[in-house]
Amino acid sequence: MAVQTVSSSTPEPASTGADQVSLGPAVSLSCRECGERVPLGPSFACTACFGPLEVAYDLPVGDPEALRKRIESGPSSIWRYAPLLPVPEDVADKPNLNPGLTKLVKADNLARELGVTGSLYVKDDSGNPTHSFKDRVVAIAVEAARAFGFTTLSCSSTGNLAGAVGAAAARAGLRSCVFIPHDLEQGKVVMAAVYGGELVGIEGTYDDVNRFCSELIGDPIGEGWGFVNVNLRPYYAEGSKTLAYEICEQLGWRLPDQIVVPIASGSQLTKIDKGLRELIALGLVEDRPYKIFGAQAEGCSPVSQAYKNGHDVVRPVRPDTIAKSLAIGNPADGPYVLDIARRTGGAVEDVDDARVVEAIKLLARTEGIFAETAGGVTVGVTKKLIDDGLLDPSLETVVLNTGDGLKTLDAVAPTTGPTAIIRPNLDSFREAGLA
Amino acid sequence: MAVQTVSSSTPEPASTGADQVSLGPAVSLSCRECGERVPLGPSFACTACFGPLEVAYDLPVGDPEALRKRIESGPSSIWRYAPLLPVPEDVADKPNLNPGLTKLVKADNLARELGVTGSLYVKDDSGNPTHSFKDRVVAIAVEAARAFGFTTLSCSSTGNLAGAVGAAAARAGLRSCVFIPHDLEQGKVVMAAVYGGELVGIEGTYDDVNRFCSELIGDPIGEGWGFVNVNLRPYYAEGSKTLAYEICEQLGWRLPDQIVVPIASGSQLTKIDKGLRELIALGLVEDRPYKIFGAQAEGCSPVSQAYKNGHDVVRPVRPDTIAKSLAIGNPADGPYVLDIARRTGGAVEDVDDARVVEAIKLLARTEGIFAETAGGVTVGVTKKLIDDGLLDPSLETVVLNTGDGLKTLDAVAPTTGPTAIIRPNLDSFREAGLA
Repeated sequence: MAVQTVSSSTPEPASTGADQVSLGPAVSLSCRECGERVPLGPSFACTACFGPLEVAYDLPVGDPEALRKRIESGPSSIWRYAPLLPVPEDVADKPNLNPGLTKLVKADNLARELGVTGSLYVKDDSGNPTHSFKDRVVAIAVEAARAFGFTTLSCSSTGNLAGAVGAAAARAGLRSCVFIPHDLEQGKVVMAAVYGGELVGIEGTYDDVNRFCSELIGDPIGEGWGFVNVNLRPYYAEGSKTLAYEICEQLGWRLPDQIVVPIASGSQLTKIDKGLRELIALGLVEDRPYKIFGAQAEGCSPVSQAYKNGHDVVRPVRPDTIAKSLAIGNPADGPYVLDIARRTGGAVEDVDDARVVEAIKLLARTEGIFAETAGGVTVGVTKKLIDDGLLDPSLETVVLNTGDGLKTLDAVAPTTGPTAIIRPNLDSFREAGLA
Repeated sequence: MAVQTVSSSTPEPASTGADQVSLGPAVSLSCRECGERVPLGPSFACTACFGPLEVAYDLPVGDPEALRKRIESGPSSIWRYAPLLPVPEDVADKPNLNPGLTKLVKADNLARELGVTGSLYVKDDSGNPTHSFKDRVVAIAVEAARAFGFTTLSCSSTGNLAGAVGAAAARAGLRSCVFIPHDLEQGKVVMAAVYGGELVGIEGTYDDVNRFCSELIGDPIGEGWGFVNVNLRPYYAEGSKTLAYEICEQLGWRLPDQIVVPIASGSQLTKIDKGLRELIALGLVEDRPYKIFGAQAEGCSPVSQAYKNGHDVVRPVRPDTIAKSLAIGNPADGPYVLDIARRTGGAVEDVDDARVVEAIKLLARTEGIFAETAGGVTVGVTKKLIDDGLLDPSLETVVLNTGDGLKTLDAVAPTTGPTAIIRPNLDSFREAGLA
């Protein structure tokens, strides 16, 4: 399971020649299982062993000081890291949503509540254009779609991703066609539809939607279609590396001691690790140990269960949790996550829905950050890991919030309301005990 | 109606001496009507003539290059402009939400649709921490509250402001107590309550809430309470100047030709003008003409009506529009807005609710920006102004979006949904005419 990240060798002429696309430092796709290389293109599975493909690079090693300066003088978005991403050099000049460079919030109030004596930070990705980290990954997928000549941007989604794809396509001038289960909440449907692309409700479950999308990719109808989380997945996934880059740059080009990352497919955690290792290999940060912790909701905790049971294999589950953006019962990158948590000395943990809600409120009342359920999962798991002695509260810790509470109002609504209802006079105010 | 903005004179010793607070370059409050000066404090109306008070400064004139460099090397938030705001010099080191420096989006797709041949930009304030421009004004109010020793942060609100105050108070470690009409939509109540402060529902209308707050300020119960939009209003309002500063800095220290600003109380537009004139006086931008346009919803358009009728006085109306964040029927700064629109050669216009919805969708499908109804008002009014020949499409124009579509989903929900509902197979997809 060697993950190739940094190569200073000459790019292999993996392409057939004429049709090799230009995506910055990306030189080929590489199988994460067998290392087989294939040319850059809309491929996602190794033809030799069916393993997942990821982007392999020829990264600019050798002069970290020059690279650091180039990054620091770059755009206030993920494009400052273009030299480390599968995107063309002039990516910032193309119409896109310019996601990233979200706030790294020093969370002293939360630290006090959690008994953290070291530094605690929240990386708050609700500040992205459509208010979730999905804008990062979709932005990279858009560049791949452009490079491969795709004219329709597509995905299967239950919410955040649909909005991110619709918005990014609108801005980029691409057609979009997004597939969702037909019975989603109206709010999510509005968010997916408002950007004016095609939105197709599928009579069936999210699994049915996914199966239909795979069918579409294999059919002539799907020609010219880039499914960000299927045939563009290797590129799309790389967008999560930017979370690692930003955290280290915002800390003053330093690795944090500990990072707590939510797990849906596990891709984000895997790519954050990849990003950290790249920064070390490039000499942008000092090479010292860091620990990565994975966070799941108890109602969809296949990776956490495998971790606790000492398994290498992740047994699929049927999700049942309010943390719907993390509700992937068969996480593709589960085994890689286990590997990373064990290699770095981290752990994988889960919390139940009640604690997720509690953690959302804790983060809101201490730091003024209203997180979506996934943020409740990471904060809740951080608390549990500290209580259980698995996360060292005297070290520097970064907790990810990947989305916005406005998108998961239902999670907190039943237990969040006015302190009191009064008549508009001082007597009534006094009677309520608030004076 | 002379608005004093830049003074290089020695600050007047307006205070009684010992208790003069230190708020950076702010030297006193000054009546916008009679010019009377009073010491910095929680005052909002002139004791001489009952006119509104605003902050008067001793601004750092004389070395624009040094000031520009200081700003550019400052924090990525409104605090880069601390030398021009009523805040202590070390404001960025205090726990706050660090709002501002939101994206100025070059809106080429929208420009094409509107027939704009010059440059068109959207200043997108949905990128603020609680996703509206209110974070700017509240952040300044928090500093004033700290300076005056207030321990409770309060406001009357119908939505955006409640969330902004709750979040800012939580982060700053202040108590908050926010007043809302008791029958608000659940989503807004959740957003106001989640930050853990006191949230009081008032049995009555928004006007009843306001009246109750005034009563509270006059009562001993209200001692130590800072109402951001009442007794802290002069400071709070200054936060809107940062929109002007950011627009000019993001354009490369240049005034735009035209700006389209929404009107609720009118304070934002007034302060944007104040900010632009400060930049000119400080030598940070070239002194050349600019036009400011005001935008209202037809269902609450008292300033637009007065403008069109050539009146100097604004006649109050009873609001009836989906643009609830702009629904102030008796806008305090209405006369100042009329003055500015006429002085700069701009105009004030309004659009009906159907066009507001159309404009929200237009902005979403062209630029991937999902605006709240107030953004629909500014985009809709921009279109109307161009169609009517009042806004020059060959010039450089900046349109403000002050909030987030996620907060006003109801406005677009009835007309925004899936293109098709299909069964999960290719035949059904073909039948829907989407292949």
